[in-house]
Amino acid sequence: AKNFNILVLPGDGIGPEVMAEAVKVLKVFETPERKFELRQELIGGCSIDAYGKSVTEEVKQAALDSDAVLFAAVGGPKWDNQRRGLDGPEGGLLQLRKAMDIYANLRPCSSTSPSASIAKEFSPFKHDVIEGVDFVVVRENCGGAYFGRKVEEETYAMDEWGYSEAEIQRVTRLSAEVALRHNPPWPLISLDKANVLASSRLWRRVVDKTMAAEYPQVKLVHQLADSASLILATNPRSLNGVILADNTFGDMISDQAGSIVGTLGVLPSASLNGLPGDKTLKTRPYGLYEPTHGSAPTIAGQNIANPVAMILCVALMFRYSLGMEDEARRVEDAVRKVLDSGLRTPDLGGKAGTKEVGDAIVSAL
Amino acid sequence: AKNFNILVLPGDGIGPEVMAEAVKVLKVFETPERKFELRQELIGGCSIDAYGKSVTEEVKQAALDSDAVLFAAVGGPKWDNQRRGLDGPEGGLLQLRKAMDIYANLRPCSSTSPSASIAKEFSPFKHDVIEGVDFVVVRENCGGAYFGRKVEEETYAMDEWGYSEAEIQRVTRLSAEVALRHNPPWPLISLDKANVLASSRLWRRVVDKTMAAEYPQVKLVHQLADSASLILATNPRSLNGVILADNTFGDMISDQAGSIVGTLGVLPSASLNGLPGDKTLKTRPYGLYEPTHGSAPTIAGQNIANPVAMILCVALMFRYSLGMEDEARRVEDAVRKVLDSGLRTPDLGGKAGTKEVGDAIVSAL
Ligand SMILES: CC(C)[C@H](C(=O)O)[C@@H](O)C(=O)O
Ligand SMILES: CC(C)[C@H](C(=O)O)[C@@H](O)C(=O)O
Repeated sequence: AKNFNILVLPGDGIGPEVMAEAVKVLKVFETPERKFELRQELIGGCSIDAYGKSVTEEVKQAALDSDAVLFAAVGGPKWDNQRRGLDGPEGGLLQLRKAMDIYANLRPCSSTSPSASIAKEFSPFKHDVIEGVDFVVVRENCGGAYFGRKVEEETYAMDEWGYSEAEIQRVTRLSAEVALRHNPPWPLISLDKANVLASSRLWRRVVDKTMAAEYPQVKLVHQLADSASLILATNPRSLNGVILADNTFGDMISDQAGSIVGTLGVLPSASLNGLPGDKTLKTRPYGLYEPTHGSAPTIAGQNIANPVAMILCVALMFRYSLGMEDEARRVEDAVRKVLDSGLRTPDLGGKAGTKEVGDAIVSAL
Repeated sequence: AKNFNILVLPGDGIGPEVMAEAVKVLKVFETPERKFELRQELIGGCSIDAYGKSVTEEVKQAALDSDAVLFAAVGGPKWDNQRRGLDGPEGGLLQLRKAMDIYANLRPCSSTSPSASIAKEFSPFKHDVIEGVDFVVVRENCGGAYFGRKVEEETYAMDEWGYSEAEIQRVTRLSAEVALRHNPPWPLISLDKANVLASSRLWRRVVDKTMAAEYPQVKLVHQLADSASLILATNPRSLNGVILADNTFGDMISDQAGSIVGTLGVLPSASLNGLPGDKTLKTRPYGLYEPTHGSAPTIAGQNIANPVAMILCVALMFRYSLGMEDEARRVEDAVRKVLDSGLRTPDLGGKAGTKEVGDAIVSAL
């Protein structure tokens, strides 16, 4: 018998509603041999209200003790002016990333299953532009400017945008492993501004060295990050593969990638500190699974939020943390079926409620 | 009689060919009362070959002595592995930006005139997505991570991403002035990552203060840079206005903006240290005008390069450096006529040569 400890962090806004549907889906996969032990905790604005901080030490520890974390969304107007950055609701997420050292944020983006029918209707792109698009963005998630030393004075402010060899190496390795798991193996497309930034020159050098020494079988392409943002919008198919970028460029590119399908409502993400089977890991491989959309406070509590991205997070958790690839595909197939059937929340032009969509996906399973 | 000193920097690759057509167009506007004194110099790879550096002190001084600089493109495989960053061909451009202190890079992007017919055919977006799109990206061009102190060690590298109040203030003012010159006045949409970066928090604070004190009549919107890159690809019309961003986010966003029209071949840019009539300027207002495409070495010397972006740089130069708004519009109208007529270079699906397109635009004038 195998029991998995899952930390459930619904957060703010629509978070609790979409999380409830994800938990329903998760429960479908319980068997006498496989139980999910769920522990639910506060994060973000609700944690600020209850404990005065966006995440408590106890919750961080619970994340480290878990097999995986399901995270919905944080923030809302209530905390917007009160607190910001590390002290704001999003600080809970940033601190958790650091505590769990989940250095790789993966965002799969595909105009095929499970969101094909959505892409067809909602993509802003002409059909032939996005046909066959299939890539994963891997964003470095724990380093660079977002976590560097900061200077914050009255008339000057500065963020250190720095990377060490080790930081670049590990995210390169993880990206290469993701590339190899694809059939046929994906190329690795590494973004940087080596023509301008010192950190990008190190980035390029370390990626080159790591790939040549350890993954000679994976095709490596370097692409300037600014050009990549244009290519992503004009010829996205040519980026099919694993798109690796640092925290800053990855933030821009992974959000932009949401445009292929046209709505964040169906796009999950995974933040990892390793893949199952990673022998370099000293801890269990941590994973945090999070929809790419926000907490949408204006529609919270109305049973109209779209739970699909959160439910697809369960699939990614099965794939990347729990070694349950078959089950991951079953979730994705069920989502595809329900989306194709037209049973959708209002953001996707449908009339169904959050719960109905969740129930339909459970039925399809 | 008024004589304008124009520094002409054709650079590498297709640079000399497209520049020749821009100069033809410029000459059309010479009258007994208005002469253009052209001085042509080397920059980029050809300057490295001739003088061992991507730009000489003499050329920098010539830029400071000019009324405006026309710059085509630099770089090519010959220098790719040999030199990089400030020492590479693009270093000539970076040094010139710094020497001229042209702190604002403007990239107009419109799905209407003069590129309407091109956008219709080449935009990757569905027609209704880009209909009526009309904005200018203003990228801070002389500060931030691209010009900050750098650390470059064997296993660690770092770029300081810093801004001073004064740097943010001046680019905010210039952006507000551009907004006011639009009819009706444009909103100012300022991008940052104030939820994560210290420099972004200063950015937001200074933009707020400057706009409230000096431009209360201009509508101000703050937008997180990552969301902006998604909005630019899903609902670009909602960004109609002046989109202001720092050097890094501006680099990404301004390249991505090229996707609206779908090809960089028709997109010019202007780099300025002030607008005509700017009373805070201690020097003459410098301006450097540059197509957004590169030096395209593989098609150089074949009379097939598209000169339109370079020719539209002449229009921007008329508008932003020489106070010749009517003449700017005449150039844009002539370009529109020729593009609409189907007389185009191969990159736009046509059969015309570089020179034919230049000649046709001259005839249309
Ligand atoms: C909320 C914010 C701190 C976060 C980030 O920039 O990392 C978000 O934009 C994301 O992309 O996950
Ligand atoms: C060539 C390079 C240094 C330059 C930049 O990043 O500024 C270019 O990409 C641009 O956008 O003008």
